[in-house]
Amino acid sequence: MKAEIVSVGTELLLGQIADTDAQHLGQLLPQLGIAHTNRQTVGDNLQRLADALRLALSRSDIVFTIGGLGPTQDDLTREGIAAALGDVLVKDDDLEANLHRIFRERRFAWVESQLRQAMRPTCSVPIANPNGTAPGLICEKDGKVVIALPGPRGEFVPMADGPVRDYLARLATGGVIVSRLLRTCGIGEGIVEDKIKDLLSSENPTIAPYAKIGEVHLRITSHAPSREEAESLIDPMEAEVRARLGAAVYGLDDVALEEVVLRQLRALGSTLAVAESCTGGGLGARITSVAGASDVFVGGIVSYANEVKEGILGVDSALFAESGPGAVSDECARQMAERVRDKFGATFGVSITGIAGPSGGSEQKPVGTVYVAVAAPDGVHSEHYRFRASREGVRERSVQSALVLLRAALA
Amino acid sequence: MKAEIVSVGTELLLGQIADTDAQHLGQLLPQLGIAHTNRQTVGDNLQRLADALRLALSRSDIVFTIGGLGPTQDDLTREGIAAALGDVLVKDDDLEANLHRIFRERRFAWVESQLRQAMRPTCSVPIANPNGTAPGLICEKDGKVVIALPGPRGEFVPMADGPVRDYLARLATGGVIVSRLLRTCGIGEGIVEDKIKDLLSSENPTIAPYAKIGEVHLRITSHAPSREEAESLIDPMEAEVRARLGAAVYGLDDVALEEVVLRQLRALGSTLAVAESCTGGGLGARITSVAGASDVFVGGIVSYANEVKEGILGVDSALFAESGPGAVSDECARQMAERVRDKFGATFGVSITGIAGPSGGSEQKPVGTVYVAVAAPDGVHSEHYRFRASREGVRERSVQSALVLLRAALA
Repeated sequence: MKAEIVSVGTELLLGQIADTDAQHLGQLLPQLGIAHTNRQTVGDNLQRLADALRLALSRSDIVFTIGGLGPTQDDLTREGIAAALGDVLVKDDDLEANLHRIFRERRFAWVESQLRQAMRPTCSVPIANPNGTAPGLICEKDGKVVIALPGPRGEFVPMADGPVRDYLARLATGGVIVSRLLRTCGIGEGIVEDKIKDLLSSENPTIAPYAKIGEVHLRITSHAPSREEAESLIDPMEAEVRARLGAAVYGLDDVALEEVVLRQLRALGSTLAVAESCTGGGLGARITSVAGASDVFVGGIVSYANEVKEGILGVDSALFAESGPGAVSDECARQMAERVRDKFGATFGVSITGIAGPSGGSEQKPVGTVYVAVAAPDGVHSEHYRFRASREGVRERSVQSALVLLRAALA
Repeated sequence: MKAEIVSVGTELLLGQIADTDAQHLGQLLPQLGIAHTNRQTVGDNLQRLADALRLALSRSDIVFTIGGLGPTQDDLTREGIAAALGDVLVKDDDLEANLHRIFRERRFAWVESQLRQAMRPTCSVPIANPNGTAPGLICEKDGKVVIALPGPRGEFVPMADGPVRDYLARLATGGVIVSRLLRTCGIGEGIVEDKIKDLLSSENPTIAPYAKIGEVHLRITSHAPSREEAESLIDPMEAEVRARLGAAVYGLDDVALEEVVLRQLRALGSTLAVAESCTGGGLGARITSVAGASDVFVGGIVSYANEVKEGILGVDSALFAESGPGAVSDECARQMAERVRDKFGATFGVSITGIAGPSGGSEQKPVGTVYVAVAAPDGVHSEHYRFRASREGVRERSVQSALVLLRAALA
């Protein structure tokens, strides 16, 4: 089974936005065993859109459109699909009633142009859009399928990952396709691949690794007549991976590392404070990106200048003396973590100090040298790193490493 | 003149990377007055690539390929272009010598497959690639042009913005095209457009607005026989925009707002400390994303919990009493800015306190309510906002607003 994506929108051609919807769908299709060899992008022009769809239909079984489903005169995807399939648009009474309901509930003034979103090809079935006004459409005609999806990301992703995924799974396998993401941290991609090498050739479920900054994610995907059967194919694979990778597996699906760490702390009834130097607040910002962090995270000190490390945090001034180890050292990281823990009355203190670059490095301490410490009730844990990356990359990896070390200390 | 982009790479179809190169080129073409109505993406397959190029050549004057120029068997763009143009590949001795030189200098082991990168269609001229091994190619045949660009971003962007831009400018106008970006902050997109409405129809130079989070950028683009003449067309337009928008214009081209603020502080011989609540360290992280921030930025306190605002920062406890204004208030923001300034001995203190959501809002203080303050030697400046955005969006806008307020206080 072969698919093709046609992204619609002049704003895509002009580069005003990146086509992250097509990227998302491109990641989904191989999980469903659907091949995908071409993609097209066209502006808001009926003739060119219809031509692109005809070309796509000539070489693919399933054609996706992304965008162009809104109420304005520029939104021409419905017309384009009807033209390419040799169909016509009809007004759907249920869709019309639904639009009126949405406008009433949101107390928006009704405008007649909204009715464009109640039009659909006769061969289509609407896909409900709980996050917007324009429904998606599944059009089946002459053995071909055209699936129209809205462009706004908050509408596109739930529709693609929900009803469209389920529809495609039935189409591609006659059953369902289920996938589960195992997230690992603190272990390199090469080591992960080496430990699961023999599993990579498994066909149902399949398993595929994806490298992220400081993390490796493993996607396990299975197909079966029912969700239960598909899950039961995944379960033993997950167990096998966990047995091989041990504590490196920190979570499932869309749970980020910072969420896992906050949960660990919450479960222990513990609190957390941070002391940051080269990351300038990035660790605190990442932890507080999680809603509800406030019951665990009390705050922190950004001690960018040595005077702040000494005067506000209370790090020993001898560290900064000519003969001392300096601000970028294991001793300094350990003291920063201990002092912030004491000062904030937190159960755990975490610190980062390093050289983000691009200048400021030396032979002994090149750019990318970073020390991280965790002050815990049972003592101080620390690690050091030499990252080879841009300033931004060093800072990102530093924050990631601090979370990995904290997770280990909490385990 | 009409162009079309053909992006090459199975990793693009699979969504492993976003097609930011095509996005970049999509932004460049309209600056050069070149229309662009279709884009195609194909995997690493010779037949499909040649088909895509033939289709593109049938409807466009200039066709760009992005990617597929490397040394591996998967890199098929050279072969695809030759096939589509009815040309053949020949080995270019200069390119071969250059490859050997690069390998010698980098002390990499030579492998014969690298020689693929010395092959080019007979109708082509190579474009030097100072950032990689694969040259770009400009192929001119039968009144059509195919321009092949390497995919890695660090090679693509300098080549597109440098020699390719110059080539296209000569092709499109017989001269050069120059553009300048005016960056504004603290003024809404609607107001900017209203103030320069009559300028938007100017043809040489053109001017086009781009809205960002808390900023509006204006790109002024001109064409003329020489760079000097093109610049002299831009100068009066820039002066006119500055006269109308006044202090809202904060910088040119790729200078970020945080860089401008750091320069202002440096020029005054001043230092800066920050106190953050809902942004959790995001303001400090953004400021320290600029290399060399350490001569101005001393550090800060992340006072996420009220106990930290009171105990560490020294904010008056009466604020948090039943009858007090609470942590999300103008008074609290002002005290946070003053206390962090005093405590860190900095010239300026900046604070942010607010409700990032998605929960924690009330009728009086809905999610998105944010207070920002700047404590300066001449007193405290403050502002409050009601952002309608996601948690991430509220936090980003809060950081941006703090920088805008600080810039105004420093002016």
